[in-house]
Amino acid sequence: MSSLQNDTFLRALMREPVDYTPLWIMRQAGRYLPEYNATRAQAGDFLALCKNPNLATEVTLQPLDRFPLDAAILFSDILTIPDAMGLGLRFTAGEGPKLDHPLRDEASIKALRLPDVNSDLRYVTDAVSQIRRSLNGRVPLIGFSGSPYTLACYMIEGGGSDDFRHIKGMLYARPDLLHHILKVTTQAVISYLNAQIQAGAQAVMVFDTWGGSLSHSAYHEFSLPYLSEIAHGLTRESDGRIVPRIAFTKGGGLWLESMATAGYDALGLDWAIDIGDARKRVGDKVALQGNFDPMALFGSPDAIQQEAARILERFGRGSGHVFNLGHGVSQHTNPDHVAALVDAVHCFSKPYHV
Amino acid sequence: MSSLQNDTFLRALMREPVDYTPLWIMRQAGRYLPEYNATRAQAGDFLALCKNPNLATEVTLQPLDRFPLDAAILFSDILTIPDAMGLGLRFTAGEGPKLDHPLRDEASIKALRLPDVNSDLRYVTDAVSQIRRSLNGRVPLIGFSGSPYTLACYMIEGGGSDDFRHIKGMLYARPDLLHHILKVTTQAVISYLNAQIQAGAQAVMVFDTWGGSLSHSAYHEFSLPYLSEIAHGLTRESDGRIVPRIAFTKGGGLWLESMATAGYDALGLDWAIDIGDARKRVGDKVALQGNFDPMALFGSPDAIQQEAARILERFGRGSGHVFNLGHGVSQHTNPDHVAALVDAVHCFSKPYHV
Repeated sequence: MSSLQNDTFLRALMREPVDYTPLWIMRQAGRYLPEYNATRAQAGDFLALCKNPNLATEVTLQPLDRFPLDAAILFSDILTIPDAMGLGLRFTAGEGPKLDHPLRDEASIKALRLPDVNSDLRYVTDAVSQIRRSLNGRVPLIGFSGSPYTLACYMIEGGGSDDFRHIKGMLYARPDLLHHILKVTTQAVISYLNAQIQAGAQAVMVFDTWGGSLSHSAYHEFSLPYLSEIAHGLTRESDGRIVPRIAFTKGGGLWLESMATAGYDALGLDWAIDIGDARKRVGDKVALQGNFDPMALFGSPDAIQQEAARILERFGRGSGHVFNLGHGVSQHTNPDHVAALVDAVHCFSKPYHV
Repeated sequence: MSSLQNDTFLRALMREPVDYTPLWIMRQAGRYLPEYNATRAQAGDFLALCKNPNLATEVTLQPLDRFPLDAAILFSDILTIPDAMGLGLRFTAGEGPKLDHPLRDEASIKALRLPDVNSDLRYVTDAVSQIRRSLNGRVPLIGFSGSPYTLACYMIEGGGSDDFRHIKGMLYARPDLLHHILKVTTQAVISYLNAQIQAGAQAVMVFDTWGGSLSHSAYHEFSLPYLSEIAHGLTRESDGRIVPRIAFTKGGGLWLESMATAGYDALGLDWAIDIGDARKRVGDKVALQGNFDPMALFGSPDAIQQEAARILERFGRGSGHVFNLGHGVSQHTNPDHVAALVDAVHCFSKPYHV
């Protein structure tokens, strides 16, 4: 493997000194980029794009050719695990992901099997290897997975939901069944992320997109313990370097103290929290990633720069911040506005690191 | 007006001693009740039901005939104000509310006019008067309004949204236009709530359903100051008794300290926050309302009672808690489960008030 030319991202995650605040953009390879849409059209559909390592490599690198981002992230989907478990994933136009065989009864839950990462998910690790080779040391590559609770949301609801009544019904009526699903899924996530690390991922992120829909007590019983189990099951080093771990519970700002002791090097933040307050609350336990409202990219370039400056000022001096949005970039975003954000963060952050 | 037979709800909002923790249920008159669906079918559609004081009175009282709730809430919709402003409200099956004339350009924003509460919204105050007479002092009647920011979401998006890109685009690109909408809407909300108080509402609640989608700094610029202006514009007493004010920003758990000084007697809580932590954070500044995950009503009656007991235990001894859900009751809820919750709260809370 060629040596890493820009390790600012990895250093910031470990709260080591950096020259500027690194950034990447959640869903940076996505529909706001015309070149992405062209590749996707060539693939046929979204799932075909995920499953084709050549095309997944191509779209992973596209945003890096436009913007001087400090990390690449594997192009894939969080639902690869439920798909590999045989739940029948498909993407419908306008309606998002659907699973044809949602887990609604005890028999199907007890029949849940671990996917074979080396065969069922081979297309993912192949993509990781290929992206890593293509990056050729430009920036680090992030691998990722959905969190057990978030994957279980899709596995039980059968798709997106605005009230999560099936999974929450199970949580309150048959917590034993939900714990069984979460236990199996946790093992799958650990194997999956370790396979990505082995294939070349230099940092890993667990997306707990729906953990924030839980009550305080339910989060601490049904999401956080499994996040913690994952952290403790992950390979710590690769190529003689620590592989930093990031956990992101969207809507989890109230729970930062307990998240900070779950075994992760960094925590993702959405925009509801003031990042200065968040830093005070987690102290030197973890780095922080995120905080910019993706919708602020609909403002003028001036307003975007002002908002970036505000977040940098609120975090303050020193390392331990990876700039990012608090959610994936909207498909309606003007790529020039992303460029304005990237430039602003790189430029404005330097004084905080001298 | 006949004297109030059960003022537990009003006393708890003012943190005065009570014998038990009072409760009501957000959206307690709603689609989970067969008798509600029968009345709605009779009205034709949802908006016709809101606009008919006889039928609005009938559905307001229905849940009180089933459950020993400690308050009634006016049956209405938060979009009555945008409707009275001429934005063309209609409800579409399955898609929720739509406004035919969303505010998207400077000319229409500058042309926004205050509704005449005494004519355009007379059907609401007529309903309040009639409900109050029909209640005959059983329990207090709550009046309500949407918050300026939440109303502006609908007025600008033209309906529900999962990303709020139009209002947030305006917030970041033309904050002056958004402030103009919010200022006009704030005046409308003050007149509207004062008219409800004059017609007989004994407490008022402002629903800031979408304030939680804002960033920390945007919330403190675009939602909270207007909530505060409303509180300071409201009639304080009616019939020689204080009219308590409740503000509820869903997803606002991180901002309780600043909300607690905005002029309200009580703050609504969703279920993401531990109510014991919330009580510590607000101290004796305000009472708290809510905290039960509406989806926990899909558990068994035993699980429902356990969850109610947990929340009561976390709040602890003394007055200042109005039990409620953290969001409206789901249409798929079994009414018997609501009965189990009401009984559990009334019974289990007594030891905390001796």
